[in-house]
Amino acid sequence: MKEHIIIVGAGLVGSAWAVMLAKRGYKVDIYELRDDPRKAGFIGGRSINLAMSDRGWRAMEKAGVKETIRKVAIPMYGRRMHDEQGQLTFQPYGQDDQAIYSVSRGGLNIELIKLADEHDNIRFFFGHKCLGVDLESNTLRFERRADGKQLQLTPDLIFGTDGAFSVIRRDLMMNTRNFNYSQSFLDYGYKEVLIPAKADGSHAIAPNSLHIWPRGNFMMIALPNVDGSFTGTLFLPYKGGDEAFDNLQTDEQIMGFFEKYFPDSLPVIPNLLQEFHENPTASLVTIRCNPWNHEDKLLIMGDASHAIVPFYGQGMNSGFEDCTILDGMIDEYDGDWSQIIPAFSASRPADANAIADLALRNFVEMRDKVADPKFLLRKAIAAHLHDKYPEDFLPLYSQVTFSHTPYHEALQEGLRQDELFEQILALDGIEDNWRENPEVDRLFQNWKKQEAVVM
Amino acid sequence: MKEHIIIVGAGLVGSAWAVMLAKRGYKVDIYELRDDPRKAGFIGGRSINLAMSDRGWRAMEKAGVKETIRKVAIPMYGRRMHDEQGQLTFQPYGQDDQAIYSVSRGGLNIELIKLADEHDNIRFFFGHKCLGVDLESNTLRFERRADGKQLQLTPDLIFGTDGAFSVIRRDLMMNTRNFNYSQSFLDYGYKEVLIPAKADGSHAIAPNSLHIWPRGNFMMIALPNVDGSFTGTLFLPYKGGDEAFDNLQTDEQIMGFFEKYFPDSLPVIPNLLQEFHENPTASLVTIRCNPWNHEDKLLIMGDASHAIVPFYGQGMNSGFEDCTILDGMIDEYDGDWSQIIPAFSASRPADANAIADLALRNFVEMRDKVADPKFLLRKAIAAHLHDKYPEDFLPLYSQVTFSHTPYHEALQEGLRQDELFEQILALDGIEDNWRENPEVDRLFQNWKKQEAVVM
Repeated sequence: MKEHIIIVGAGLVGSAWAVMLAKRGYKVDIYELRDDPRKAGFIGGRSINLAMSDRGWRAMEKAGVKETIRKVAIPMYGRRMHDEQGQLTFQPYGQDDQAIYSVSRGGLNIELIKLADEHDNIRFFFGHKCLGVDLESNTLRFERRADGKQLQLTPDLIFGTDGAFSVIRRDLMMNTRNFNYSQSFLDYGYKEVLIPAKADGSHAIAPNSLHIWPRGNFMMIALPNVDGSFTGTLFLPYKGGDEAFDNLQTDEQIMGFFEKYFPDSLPVIPNLLQEFHENPTASLVTIRCNPWNHEDKLLIMGDASHAIVPFYGQGMNSGFEDCTILDGMIDEYDGDWSQIIPAFSASRPADANAIADLALRNFVEMRDKVADPKFLLRKAIAAHLHDKYPEDFLPLYSQVTFSHTPYHEALQEGLRQDELFEQILALDGIEDNWRENPEVDRLFQNWKKQEAVVM
Repeated sequence: MKEHIIIVGAGLVGSAWAVMLAKRGYKVDIYELRDDPRKAGFIGGRSINLAMSDRGWRAMEKAGVKETIRKVAIPMYGRRMHDEQGQLTFQPYGQDDQAIYSVSRGGLNIELIKLADEHDNIRFFFGHKCLGVDLESNTLRFERRADGKQLQLTPDLIFGTDGAFSVIRRDLMMNTRNFNYSQSFLDYGYKEVLIPAKADGSHAIAPNSLHIWPRGNFMMIALPNVDGSFTGTLFLPYKGGDEAFDNLQTDEQIMGFFEKYFPDSLPVIPNLLQEFHENPTASLVTIRCNPWNHEDKLLIMGDASHAIVPFYGQGMNSGFEDCTILDGMIDEYDGDWSQIIPAFSASRPADANAIADLALRNFVEMRDKVADPKFLLRKAIAAHLHDKYPEDFLPLYSQVTFSHTPYHEALQEGLRQDELFEQILALDGIEDNWRENPEVDRLFQNWKKQEAVVM
């Protein structure tokens, strides 16, 4: 228990992890580039919202902040699809009471920092820029932004939770023999546009859903905020044809594009042109690396070791799950970091890779398949099978979102489910007879048996 | 023709490219970290040898150095496999006169530098460390190692040929939006051991072959040098079981390993233990990235943009082919760099990716398949088909090694050839009747027709 721990980065994962460590009695110092958000507010003003699901909630519970966050989180029970005529359809995420929760990144971060600050064994150092780490001596270098003074610190243990552009990961990469790394960008950018609250403070569109305007090759989505607004996000190719950011430059182009593809959104986005011109077009990157550790002294977590695209709503959730699993390993290895850190780095990347793949896969689902009757039919049959065989069949989306099954197992199971539905959807008249067609059950039982054989 | 060009890195690709540019009248300055190898010799003493094949020779011809290099290159007409009892088998690379050529990296580099230095419009600046590049202004920063003085230079055009650990690529990565990058290491290392010349200066094993000791999961190879020696290279997993570098620490372990797996090599490696202990264990990395350019002002080439594993003998050849193709584009676009550089960066990475994949694939072939009778049978039938239908069938290895077919087309064709041989090798009694079995021809004709349909 003598370990002195430094966490680099007081974002979501860093502050949650600090709380878990502090609860076990460790002495933790957190260094953060930005100023204290409790005083400074969050850069960029408007908060980005994220979807918290079961994996995230479990970490919030461990940290002891679940009830507080739950109060300002808005449940979304399903997807609400808007077609080009403004017609709506609804697709539940799971069973009746199952939901993912829209939370504000900034608000959540402030709650976690407040909670961490209640612990005497946690100290925050805001406004400190990490310049690098010397792996040999485990020495961190920081610059205090207020006066430019440089600090050198040599803790027993370092956790790098400094995000997708991690300085700790950069130095791990530069100085680790055989460090595998990839950063891969989609040809798409995204841009946020605000759907403000109505004059009476209520939501302008149905609040308890994640709204999607699926348009095949691109889409817009919107998640509710507690102040009555929605954050809308347009995902669109950078280049190529009329439907691309490169060809949405003039007011006329932007208005024409929204009138053509998202006509029902125009009345609820009063400042569209201003928003569109002022808000940046951001990139979508997948980052993978391996190993995540340097010996038993340094570990990178969250976006620092695995940044993913947002289409499965699992970026934050997977980072929080890092904390849950690592916390569990402290018990498993009786606090022996020389075992915990290598063990985590050896096992967890497989799950990070799986959710990275699933998130890329889900982009196609959200922007295109959700508008496909065949896809909706599959969803309905999957829910039906789950109702009938709750022990034996859990749809992939539910495994990822409403369970704690390791991501890499969920991905494998998902690929197996694809095979089952390929068979089921090929049945004659399945569109009309899926509820009573005995072939559905026979195929399912066969499929179940194959699993038993494989395992 | 007013362009002032700086090439960063006077290695193989950098010096060859300088010559091609100089022949067109461009003014070229080359900055190189190391000292002048004509005076300093090459670091590490003993030269590494590489296999030059048709793509490399074409670039040498363009540069005007083919005849000079040819005199010190040793043709290798095929693979000579050593089994665990020291029995030898031979497998030709192509037709009778076709060979790949063992050349010394250091010797070749010196020849290219000498040749470049004959051009008045080429200037060399050795002992200059590149500190970085500012993309905005196209300004390079160097440190002169002799006195620590810093230089800033702003040429019209920059070519980064500074190798697998390219500083130019690092800065391109840090400052280019949506820069895709991956570095991926094999779980294998490699170590060189010298097979010295005999007392009379002749080669201790047959000189005109590439020797392979294939052992399934690992292998040793040896390439001839002009001084009568061979450079042997052991490729072995870092970890896991007895056959791994981690378990070859003591003299006893090393000797036991060689006695068990490479007994016929022991008499010709007299200083095995010293070599093994003193020579480093090096890594095997594949580097891919995209884009390779910054606008029309900067381009990375060779290992700087595409480092590959050595198992197809195409690392140097693909770098030289970069020069050949880019030189061809100067004609195609009439010297307009604003078209040449984006066009090259848009098309060439597909070939670099293909040869990276082929090189990884060939590791399995060299260490394992070359000892498999089924594989040797396939090789024989492929040669037979090529003899019979020279216009319609060129084995994959020959396409890569003895042709200038773009790598990505060769890879696709190779995958198609796999399909053909899957069918042929499934024929009854094929081991004995492949020369006269009419089914072989029928399958081949069918396969050929499919291609026609696809194209």
